[in-house]
Amino acid sequence: MEILVYRKGIPKIQENFTAADLPELLKDQSALIWVDMEKPGAADERVLLDTFQFHPLTVEDCRENRHYPKVEEFEDYLYFIVHGVTADISPERFNTIELDGFLGPNYVITYHHEMFRSINNVKQQLRTTPVACQRGPAFLLHQILDQVVDFYSPVLDDFDDRIDQLEDDIFTLKRPNNEILSEIMDLKRSVLRLRRISGKQMDILHRMSRGEFGLIPEDMRPFYRDVYDHLVRVVDLAESYRDLISGSLEAYLSVVSNRLNEIMKVLTIFSAVMLPLTFIAGVYGMNFENMPELHSRYGYYAAWGIMIIVAVAMLLFFKRRGWIGGSSKEETPDI
Amino acid sequence: MEILVYRKGIPKIQENFTAADLPELLKDQSALIWVDMEKPGAADERVLLDTFQFHPLTVEDCRENRHYPKVEEFEDYLYFIVHGVTADISPERFNTIELDGFLGPNYVITYHHEMFRSINNVKQQLRTTPVACQRGPAFLLHQILDQVVDFYSPVLDDFDDRIDQLEDDIFTLKRPNNEILSEIMDLKRSVLRLRRISGKQMDILHRMSRGEFGLIPEDMRPFYRDVYDHLVRVVDLAESYRDLISGSLEAYLSVVSNRLNEIMKVLTIFSAVMLPLTFIAGVYGMNFENMPELHSRYGYYAAWGIMIIVAVAMLLFFKRRGWIGGSSKEETPDI
Amino acid sequence: MEILVYRKGIPKIQENFTAADLPELLKDQSALIWVDMEKPGAADERVLLDTFQFHPLTVEDCRENRHYPKVEEFEDYLYFIVHGVTADISPERFNTIELDGFLGPNYVITYHHEMFRSINNVKQQLRTTPVACQRGPAFLLHQILDQVVDFYSPVLDDFDDRIDQLEDDIFTLKRPNNEILSEIMDLKRSVLRLRRISGKQMDILHRMSRGEFGLIPEDMRPFYRDVYDHLVRVVDLAESYRDLISGSLEAYLSVVSNRLNEIMKVLTIFSAVMLPLTFIAGVYGMNFENMPELHSRYGYYAAWGIMIIVAVAMLLFFKRRGWIGGSSKEETPDI
Amino acid sequence: MEILVYRKGIPKIQENFTAADLPELLKDQSALIWVDMEKPGAADERVLLDTFQFHPLTVEDCRENRHYPKVEEFEDYLYFIVHGVTADISPERFNTIELDGFLGPNYVITYHHEMFRSINNVKQQLRTTPVACQRGPAFLLHQILDQVVDFYSPVLDDFDDRIDQLEDDIFTLKRPNNEILSEIMDLKRSVLRLRRISGKQMDILHRMSRGEFGLIPEDMRPFYRDVYDHLVRVVDLAESYRDLISGSLEAYLSVVSNRLNEIMKVLTIFSAVMLPLTFIAGVYGMNFENMPELHSRYGYYAAWGIMIIVAVAMLLFFKRRGWIGGSSKEETPDI
Amino acid sequence: MEILVYRKGIPKIQENFTAADLPELLKDQSALIWVDMEKPGAADERVLLDTFQFHPLTVEDCRENRHYPKVEEFEDYLYFIVHGVTADISPERFNTIELDGFLGPNYVITYHHEMFRSINNVKQQLRTTPVACQRGPAFLLHQILDQVVDFYSPVLDDFDDRIDQLEDDIFTLKRPNNEILSEIMDLKRSVLRLRRISGKQMDILHRMSRGEFGLIPEDMRPFYRDVYDHLVRVVDLAESYRDLISGSLEAYLSVVSNRLNEIMKVLTIFSAVMLPLTFIAGVYGMNFENMPELHSRYGYYAAWGIMIIVAVAMLLFFKRRGWIGGSSKEETPDI
Repeated sequence: MEILVYRKGIPKIQENFTAADLPELLKDQSALIWVDMEKPGAADERVLLDTFQFHPLTVEDCRENRHYPKVEEFEDYLYFIVHGVTADISPERFNTIELDGFLGPNYVITYHHEMFRSINNVKQQLRTTPVACQRGPAFLLHQILDQVVDFYSPVLDDFDDRIDQLEDDIFTLKRPNNEILSEIMDLKRSVLRLRRISGKQMDILHRMSRGEFGLIPEDMRPFYRDVYDHLVRVVDLAESYRDLISGSLEAYLSVVSNRLNEIMKVLTIFSAVMLPLTFIAGVYGMNFENMPELHSRYGYYAAWGIMIIVAVAMLLFFKRRGWIGGSSKEETPDI
Repeated sequence: MEILVYRKGIPKIQENFTAADLPELLKDQSALIWVDMEKPGAADERVLLDTFQFHPLTVEDCRENRHYPKVEEFEDYLYFIVHGVTADISPERFNTIELDGFLGPNYVITYHHEMFRSINNVKQQLRTTPVACQRGPAFLLHQILDQVVDFYSPVLDDFDDRIDQLEDDIFTLKRPNNEILSEIMDLKRSVLRLRRISGKQMDILHRMSRGEFGLIPEDMRPFYRDVYDHLVRVVDLAESYRDLISGSLEAYLSVVSNRLNEIMKVLTIFSAVMLPLTFIAGVYGMNFENMPELHSRYGYYAAWGIMIIVAVAMLLFFKRRGWIGGSSKEETPDI
Repeated sequence: MEILVYRKGIPKIQENFTAADLPELLKDQSALIWVDMEKPGAADERVLLDTFQFHPLTVEDCRENRHYPKVEEFEDYLYFIVHGVTADISPERFNTIELDGFLGPNYVITYHHEMFRSINNVKQQLRTTPVACQRGPAFLLHQILDQVVDFYSPVLDDFDDRIDQLEDDIFTLKRPNNEILSEIMDLKRSVLRLRRISGKQMDILHRMSRGEFGLIPEDMRPFYRDVYDHLVRVVDLAESYRDLISGSLEAYLSVVSNRLNEIMKVLTIFSAVMLPLTFIAGVYGMNFENMPELHSRYGYYAAWGIMIIVAVAMLLFFKRRGWIGGSSKEETPDI
Repeated sequence: MEILVYRKGIPKIQENFTAADLPELLKDQSALIWVDMEKPGAADERVLLDTFQFHPLTVEDCRENRHYPKVEEFEDYLYFIVHGVTADISPERFNTIELDGFLGPNYVITYHHEMFRSINNVKQQLRTTPVACQRGPAFLLHQILDQVVDFYSPVLDDFDDRIDQLEDDIFTLKRPNNEILSEIMDLKRSVLRLRRISGKQMDILHRMSRGEFGLIPEDMRPFYRDVYDHLVRVVDLAESYRDLISGSLEAYLSVVSNRLNEIMKVLTIFSAVMLPLTFIAGVYGMNFENMPELHSRYGYYAAWGIMIIVAVAMLLFFKRRGWIGGSSKEETPDI
Repeated sequence: MEILVYRKGIPKIQENFTAADLPELLKDQSALIWVDMEKPGAADERVLLDTFQFHPLTVEDCRENRHYPKVEEFEDYLYFIVHGVTADISPERFNTIELDGFLGPNYVITYHHEMFRSINNVKQQLRTTPVACQRGPAFLLHQILDQVVDFYSPVLDDFDDRIDQLEDDIFTLKRPNNEILSEIMDLKRSVLRLRRISGKQMDILHRMSRGEFGLIPEDMRPFYRDVYDHLVRVVDLAESYRDLISGSLEAYLSVVSNRLNEIMKVLTIFSAVMLPLTFIAGVYGMNFENMPELHSRYGYYAAWGIMIIVAVAMLLFFKRRGWIGGSSKEETPDI
């Protein structure tokens, strides 16, 4: 548990307090106390229950992973759950980490089981200049939420890149295989998660910015609306990505279909050219005694002639149907 | 019918009452009476109609399976239907059991045709300590609903495992067959049922937690909101599962498509290599008298040479098109 | 036109009135008059317009088939259209019949072009005991609507059976043919109609049960809510059926796809085994003078040996790919 | 510009007025003036702007095709755009024509660039009897809208017929070709347009019938509600048609799929029967010196015997798999 | 930064002011000042922050590209973001440019990083006649927004043309290839973007036109409603286009399917005709000593006869199945 205290008239953030100092600190209505609990234990929970006297259900909510953002108003504090994104953007799945917190008249409490980059950033800023604290706990909370939401951007950029890459892969595709399919499915799932999690946070910021909670004063609302606008854009992008990925899947299926057509065309052209020739050769391989052609001097050459005519006729037939490209000399279908 | 009575100042739950004691018990406004009717009969129904004077339509609703959660407010009691999940998680279908109940000013009635694990758990707790009763009937009802909803978790975990298993099966699939398809369909149906049933219960808990009913006092609302939050997460998970299963079906269909492509490629490569060779052999099987090649000393070897050249040319042609993998010596398509 | 009259203190329903008696009967505010018009003619319409002075547009609505349930409030009466189901559950399409009606302060009018089983049932009940009439016209109307909705149940059960049958047909399918497809389409259409018609009736009953209309008194609302609940369940089932049928269609398409794969596998295996063998036979059918093998004593047997080796190699190749089942001796693909 | 005037106490509609008479006519609050502008020019627009002093934007809306129904209330008039259907039901696309209009305290103005059958009908009626005018401008407008909506019915019937025809074509389909597909697409597009255009008009009639506009008095509302009900049915039918057409497309795709299966079965059966026979013939066409069978007296007949046995075995194999129908003598697959 | 000033009684727009004149100009409540910032720099931002004292967050919003239209009300000004379309309609993607702006009691500020044709148009108009300025800043803003939205029309027409072209390509399609697919995907994406961006702007204009903002007076609302109506039509068209493109994709997939069927038919007909003939030739190529037919004088001709009969029988078989068109002499399938 780390405690940062800002007091009017003191130009520096004070640190190095312990849980025992909290009751005293909280009495100073003009101070601003930020209690950050990283990887909290039973002692931290006792502080929440005894010193701050939060509702036992909210403390239970803190302890467990809820996977579901929310904000609840109690008589003199707000309880919220929001989600940040993890630093390592795994190629497989988009991951979130949970941030629980409380906002009171002169304190902000943050509670998280994992390291939060955005929280460390805000602390660093405060140590440089406590200016964010001068505007009260609602502004400090806004700073934290703003940082949390800012870390969504690289994730979105990464999605952008991967979808672009995917579309290239689909159309230039040398080998239609299950890898592409599997990547489409993974991306789709990640985008759906992103859409869900950011959509819910958007709702929460909307409630915070429209003046529903007394603890967030009127003049703070534009700042919360700014975070809300950011989340609106995240949700909007997530929806675009979902559409793009659906389009990719459709494109992939169509490319596979086109490829099947191509394969079948090759097979059909080969069969249709070769089968009649083999038949003609078979005819003159028959052992009938009385086959006048066999005894003709130019019979063999005539047979070759017929075979070449048949082959060319077949190729022309397929060329006329558009199955063979510009040059009728090669059996290369044009797709 | 089992009757549990808690009276102020008595540290233990009293049991062993019969239906005949109910009128007397109900007169004590400070007591809390829980009537649990498991596999109820006509006598139990009479109690509901005569002693409690519930609306005949609600008693009829109790008797029949309604498959549809609801809550209705009457002048001095609440009637509700909720659904729990059965203990045995059948691999085929997700099953629910119905719990009817009434909440009055000093009583809770639960009515169910099948054994309910959650209700037995709550009874067991009360026998140990009647602490839940001290806070009144709304708290006792919350305890019961909380237990009912807690039993959804193993079902959700089971879905999670089965969907993961399914996705592995689809991609590593040696044999695309109707079994996988049939399992996808079963899972989809179960998840849709779970989504539907939990969505409706969520609505009911929402109404209970937002203070719509006078019988659930203000200070009980956070507890009902907690159950509501739990159901929100269940619904949310059910929706994720639905998306995942839809994705699985799409993946399955694509894998089957890819496999068809693979089969057709093998067929095409075989045909395209073999048909020209057979044709060449056919040519030299013709019986023309005048075929100079036949009399040439190395004609036979030349024929083999031509055939090998044709075969290699074909394989190179397919290799260039990307139908054959790294080694052009084997006719192994690369998928 | 059939007129049933209940008067306070008279233990039996009175019948055998004619249209001419209506003005007199209607004056008695304490009586309850039910006018049932089955296959009505111009005379009946005149009664509606002149005796009851209903709005001409509603009488026109009565005359024509509207296919659309509705309820409209006028100054001193309610006009409604609801739909019942026909007795014969045609295997092809789900059919409905229209019931128009009016509810006034002391009368109920039902108007229908076809025989209505539910109306006959209610009449029969009233002739036995007029108890339903003692509670006023709103209760009588509730009885009629309740009966109309009760007749939906066999239709729903029939859908259930047919969908189950269909799913069996799809998976055990010996012959994928257009019959199954056609049945899926018919079922889908019927379920969509059921969903639409019951959804609209649900809205109407909802409006009736929430106290929107003064002619349906407060104490009647639980009864209308009961019919409403019934319709909610019908709608809910119809939605499940729609999901099930969509699933069936997807399953059917996949089964057809799987079958195509199976067919192509058989073709590919046959071709891949037979083409090389035919080629080898073709080689030794060539007529070159100098073909040492032909003169070898065991040449013929060696050729057979080669051919058997090639065939076995092919079968092993397909077995390794999983195209041929447990026993490699038979060319039976495993699907 | 055609001006029809009805004056209290005069049993006939007066015509033959010009734009110059309008200011005088409008002063008579008890008169009812209908100005119908068919293929209007600049002079007509001047009348709208100067005599009636309508908002310039509405006059601009009149002049241009807006493809979007709307109703707007101004201080003392209503402006509306609705759409009628053209008389010729083109087989390709469903077409609409735009009707703009104004409703004032004692006038109705209709403005349209093309001939409107419904407007001509109403005029004809008025010339016979001015009864519709006695009830004021709102009733006259209702008459016009009612006629406009009535002309939707033949279009709907035409859709009905074409969808029925289409479904027959799909299932009895001798030739699966792009014509059917193209017709499905055309129908789908037309139905979507009908759904969109009638949906928007429904909204407008809904606003008119619920008493939102002071110019439509209370007692006119049932008449507007009647037109609204008609549009509700049109929308409902359009939605059914959309579902039916989606079903048709699915059916068409499945029929094409089934046909592919059928084609492949024929190919596979032919190949599987013929390839082994050709191979056997090839074997005995080899030129090995030492082939005992060739010298056997009944060798040839034995070869035929083997070939017939192989062919029958193949046919039985496919019959057992259900690929060949009742009679195994013919190679007719059973689909 | 360009500053245009209109002052009561002065018939010309005054220009050539600098940022330094702004404080003085703004004091004249009866003047109308338009500040247009094209490709603005730090100095422009300072003016916004210092002279106009806009909220820092809105100035930050100006500076960055937000891709998301919005309107926000502050105490004495409105801040908005809308999007115009770029002049060059790239064949690949539909592009938008962002216009930020402020509306105050006597000023309009426009802020954009790229050249805006619509803004230049409005300036040109004002220089000709300042009539638009006489009606106040809200009217001037309406003029700008109206021009911005007017530039959507050529984009919509372009979509129309390209979709028409696409549908022709699909059905007359000589070569089903990935180009068409790729174009469908591009169009779909552009239409989705258009739908999204115009939908959001529609919401903003709706809020502006319904009197939510005090800075837009009552008598300006019809003008804003006109722009709103225009956007409603854009959104409506975008939705039609989306439906059309979805239909195109379905059509394309079906055309590809039909083509596969056609290819398979050709293959099947060829194989089924050629394989039996080859088999017959193979039979008489066997070298059995005792083959009576071989020694018959007309054996060879009889063999030809049999082969022709078999070929004709096959062709008749496929003709009866409808696989071959009117003339059975050619092997042209009828699709």
